[in-house]
Amino acid sequence: MDIATIIGLLGGTALVLSAIVMGGSATMFFNVPGLLIVAGGTLATCFIKFSMEDVINTMKVAMKAFMAKMDSPDKIIEEMISFAKIAKKNGMLALEKEKPNDVFCAKAVRYLADGYDEGIIEDMLNKDIRLTIKRHIVGQKIFKGMGASAPAFGMIGTLIGLVQMLASMDNPASIGPSMAVALLTTLYGALIANLICIPLADKLSLRSEQEQMNKSIIVEAAIGINRGLPPMILEDSLKIYLLPKNRQKPEPGEKEEEEN
Amino acid sequence: MDIATIIGLLGGTALVLSAIVMGGSATMFFNVPGLLIVAGGTLATCFIKFSMEDVINTMKVAMKAFMAKMDSPDKIIEEMISFAKIAKKNGMLALEKEKPNDVFCAKAVRYLADGYDEGIIEDMLNKDIRLTIKRHIVGQKIFKGMGASAPAFGMIGTLIGLVQMLASMDNPASIGPSMAVALLTTLYGALIANLICIPLADKLSLRSEQEQMNKSIIVEAAIGINRGLPPMILEDSLKIYLLPKNRQKPEPGEKEEEEN
Amino acid sequence: MDIATIIGLLGGTALVLSAIVMGGSATMFFNVPGLLIVAGGTLATCFIKFSMEDVINTMKVAMKAFMAKMDSPDKIIEEMISFAKIAKKNGMLALEKEKPNDVFCAKAVRYLADGYDEGIIEDMLNKDIRLTIKRHIVGQKIFKGMGASAPAFGMIGTLIGLVQMLASMDNPASIGPSMAVALLTTLYGALIANLICIPLADKLSLRSEQEQMNKSIIVEAAIGINRGLPPMILEDSLKIYLLPKNRQKPEPGEKEEEEN
Amino acid sequence: MDIATIIGLLGGTALVLSAIVMGGSATMFFNVPGLLIVAGGTLATCFIKFSMEDVINTMKVAMKAFMAKMDSPDKIIEEMISFAKIAKKNGMLALEKEKPNDVFCAKAVRYLADGYDEGIIEDMLNKDIRLTIKRHIVGQKIFKGMGASAPAFGMIGTLIGLVQMLASMDNPASIGPSMAVALLTTLYGALIANLICIPLADKLSLRSEQEQMNKSIIVEAAIGINRGLPPMILEDSLKIYLLPKNRQKPEPGEKEEEEN
Amino acid sequence: MDIATIIGLLGGTALVLSAIVMGGSATMFFNVPGLLIVAGGTLATCFIKFSMEDVINTMKVAMKAFMAKMDSPDKIIEEMISFAKIAKKNGMLALEKEKPNDVFCAKAVRYLADGYDEGIIEDMLNKDIRLTIKRHIVGQKIFKGMGASAPAFGMIGTLIGLVQMLASMDNPASIGPSMAVALLTTLYGALIANLICIPLADKLSLRSEQEQMNKSIIVEAAIGINRGLPPMILEDSLKIYLLPKNRQKPEPGEKEEEEN
Repeated sequence: MDIATIIGLLGGTALVLSAIVMGGSATMFFNVPGLLIVAGGTLATCFIKFSMEDVINTMKVAMKAFMAKMDSPDKIIEEMISFAKIAKKNGMLALEKEKPNDVFCAKAVRYLADGYDEGIIEDMLNKDIRLTIKRHIVGQKIFKGMGASAPAFGMIGTLIGLVQMLASMDNPASIGPSMAVALLTTLYGALIANLICIPLADKLSLRSEQEQMNKSIIVEAAIGINRGLPPMILEDSLKIYLLPKNRQKPEPGEKEEEEN
Repeated sequence: MDIATIIGLLGGTALVLSAIVMGGSATMFFNVPGLLIVAGGTLATCFIKFSMEDVINTMKVAMKAFMAKMDSPDKIIEEMISFAKIAKKNGMLALEKEKPNDVFCAKAVRYLADGYDEGIIEDMLNKDIRLTIKRHIVGQKIFKGMGASAPAFGMIGTLIGLVQMLASMDNPASIGPSMAVALLTTLYGALIANLICIPLADKLSLRSEQEQMNKSIIVEAAIGINRGLPPMILEDSLKIYLLPKNRQKPEPGEKEEEEN
Repeated sequence: MDIATIIGLLGGTALVLSAIVMGGSATMFFNVPGLLIVAGGTLATCFIKFSMEDVINTMKVAMKAFMAKMDSPDKIIEEMISFAKIAKKNGMLALEKEKPNDVFCAKAVRYLADGYDEGIIEDMLNKDIRLTIKRHIVGQKIFKGMGASAPAFGMIGTLIGLVQMLASMDNPASIGPSMAVALLTTLYGALIANLICIPLADKLSLRSEQEQMNKSIIVEAAIGINRGLPPMILEDSLKIYLLPKNRQKPEPGEKEEEEN
Repeated sequence: MDIATIIGLLGGTALVLSAIVMGGSATMFFNVPGLLIVAGGTLATCFIKFSMEDVINTMKVAMKAFMAKMDSPDKIIEEMISFAKIAKKNGMLALEKEKPNDVFCAKAVRYLADGYDEGIIEDMLNKDIRLTIKRHIVGQKIFKGMGASAPAFGMIGTLIGLVQMLASMDNPASIGPSMAVALLTTLYGALIANLICIPLADKLSLRSEQEQMNKSIIVEAAIGINRGLPPMILEDSLKIYLLPKNRQKPEPGEKEEEEN
Repeated sequence: MDIATIIGLLGGTALVLSAIVMGGSATMFFNVPGLLIVAGGTLATCFIKFSMEDVINTMKVAMKAFMAKMDSPDKIIEEMISFAKIAKKNGMLALEKEKPNDVFCAKAVRYLADGYDEGIIEDMLNKDIRLTIKRHIVGQKIFKGMGASAPAFGMIGTLIGLVQMLASMDNPASIGPSMAVALLTTLYGALIANLICIPLADKLSLRSEQEQMNKSIIVEAAIGINRGLPPMILEDSLKIYLLPKNRQKPEPGEKEEEEN
């Protein structure tokens, strides 16, 4: 699983917990009805907003996004260049024996080996990218939607608590504790949104962009191979996708530090 | 009707009601003038923002969106492939006898059978999609507009209540209950917006996107049939619209788990 | 005038007034200095943001938008089809005698009769649409700008009142009424923005979209007439602009209820 | 200078001042440290966000935007039509003697007289427009950025004041005045943002759009002249930029009141 | 380092500190647990949202953005014009000996000297620009993300403090100081966001735009050189990138003050 995500989630939770414990009794921060209304309300709106299939699918995709290790762009470039060399040396048909691990890459290689037209290769691969992004966006929308609903239900819970407290304000001594309980749902909503939902939505979006870039490299390489571009020029062109410091074989006089 | 929407609406309402009942008397949460100002004000702005025809139309469209079952993309792809095979075997004219259930699909098939130009087929079907989306967007705007007005009128109701309470602050004992009543409209506004209007607007948008994808598949298939694309290649191209795991006949070496 | 707008404005105002009256004395909700600072401040920023000419023009356009009755799309389609039939039967020049009521339509017909090139007709009519939309957007911006300024000046008024109250807090009995007065400007700001300005901005935007669609129908029809498209095919193509249920002569097997 | 801006700024300030004076002592609304933290903090962030050169440039551009009188579109159209007539009568070279006041117009005329290609004329003039807009956008961003920072520093000032007040709450009598002072920074922030920065940013944006439209007219006219378009047709095409009521020579049967 | 950024950061901090010191004891504004929860929580969400590699890379890029001095556009234009003259006089191959300092410029010159096709030069340089911008946007997103998280964790800290205070409200005398401490985290969050994170994100965005413009000048010049455009015309075209007052050799009759 993605280490930064774990560190962030655990670290953030630990910080909040320590702030709670340092202030004395931690049990008063635990309120089941409050948790139910915030988490339950957020989940309920999630079901109204999306189809059950989407929610379940998203959870799977999200899990995968945090668990799976994505290929680094330079590994992909290296692999594509090796295919370009094979195609140059032994012809397109020789690519038939290549079985890249990545499904998308395998599809691109198969199209090349099958001798599809450049237009069709480009269209079908780009459509694949476009539709993958669409599915990713649904996943991000679910997390963003929960990040918007949680504070709202936190406020709803607090309003319910305040109304109950104000309506029966006989004993001034009970005002403090009642209000403390009422505020808890706002706290729950803020934590669910800001520590979990919104950051995870952003992580999914970042992952989606990385995957999209990896696939773009494959598409560009496939088109270059199909056109019979010399592997060296193809490599030059693909290396632009890398950070300047990761582009091997710098030209003489090139000062890497200046680019970013 | 869409099950997830029902579960969400009922579940969310049940959660809020239980939080209210658990806190004691539930009757104090029921305030007719407060409900009137929030629901009435929201409806009033809705009439100013939109034409009466739009509001009524939207309600119908929204009902349909929650009741009607949409065809799944793979059923549509299957049907279009069968048309492609018929056209390939017996010529375009043979499509005249096909009567697909879906209006949009029927229109596409009729255009094919009538021998329209590819450009005209594409233009007219895409215009249909574009204008359907426009109508859907009006529906989403109405629900989003109500989701923005409800909290505003909740605040307006609370402000009116606060001014009345503060102006006649003779009896300190009555401050609590008066303020409780004043806060109720804010609660109503938050519930109407966050439990009903905003989630329904999002659901409509999701439904609209699904319908748009279904229609895009039909357009792409119709163009492919018109061009005489081999049904197998057409199927390959249309299957990209499906989730990776739903694409039948995976290529050897393809690892479905890696795509999303 | 547009009936829905009147119903909404009157209904919303009546609701707010009844909520005020039901709570007792209504006079305390009327505060001239508070009204002056909110309405005056909103107007002042409106003058800084826009030119005087724009503000006056917008008021006129807004009045017209609420008063004028817009042609329904099907009436426009009918008229354009009749022109197409005339052009088909008697040639383009015969259109010279046609004098449609709508200025934009008259212009399109004149271009056709004068035998302009298709490119020029399309360019000039589309430029007209584009620039009309630009003028409409200024109008919407003015109402939206007032909808954003009003709550801000409501808050400014409340802050001024609070500072005055807090600075001279000698008599605890006067705190309540002073604060009530201070809150009034916030209430005014919320009402001006949410009951008047924001809904009117949305209505103008809706009207602009309708007008834009009407003009698009005319442009498309004019190009079709110029190309000599058969009136029947042109009608088919224009009818897509209508709601499915308003498209006459449904194809056999077409189930209107399924489209939206 | 632009009259509406002056009226708005003075009127808004007068309204706020009268509201302050009417409430009694006005001196309590004047707090130097509070003003320093809001205005100073806003300026400090402005320096972090932009380069010093940008800030100074913007101030100059803003001054000019409020002082300079912009040519009205119909004057520009008239001038361009006169150039078109000269070019038609005496050839492009005759434009060499024309010296329009406007720099951009002079450049367009020079390109025409020098016999540049249509593509180059269009590219260079449009690049000029695009880069001018970019510079204007930096100016708007500066004012918008200050409009966002001012309320934030207002809140920061109030928080500092509240913490100081709450930490030394020995004398209940001093709570009111201390809190009044603490609230002043929020008031300052709201006034700086809503009465000055945001409206000025909007005015700059409006001015930028007007200038852009003026320049678009010149580009379109220059291209038309280069193509040898008849001055009458060119005039017809340029007049679309004007408000319907300002377009001279209305066609018979044209009802101006209906367009907007 | 960028002077305006330093002035802004130091000036803003000094203003806030002086406001704190002027109010009496400054130590009460220093609260380690509060700082930990705001800064720590912000950092934790930052780790969830982005990959560790991105965060570290961004810090480096940000440092460079503030330290490095960017070439001014007119220096770049001058250099490119000198290359154009060399190419005109001695042929493209003569460019091989030129070693511009800027990496991007060096790459463009090398492509020219190597005799690449115009299409390839344009594609590869523009891809470089596009991908550099993408990397910059990740950097801006990190700062903007922290600017959004900091106030949220400030509020979370205050909520925790309020709940603890309200739950144990035995001693009224301790309410003030407890609440002061609770408010501190909100103050920390507002300062981190508004004085540091948001302004730095804006500065990075401005820098990115400047770099992008510099690179666009180089691309345009490279294409012009490749096409053999006369250096004078190329200079004319590139000078449009400069502020009007910085464009040398003004045409007679040109009034610079009128453009902006």
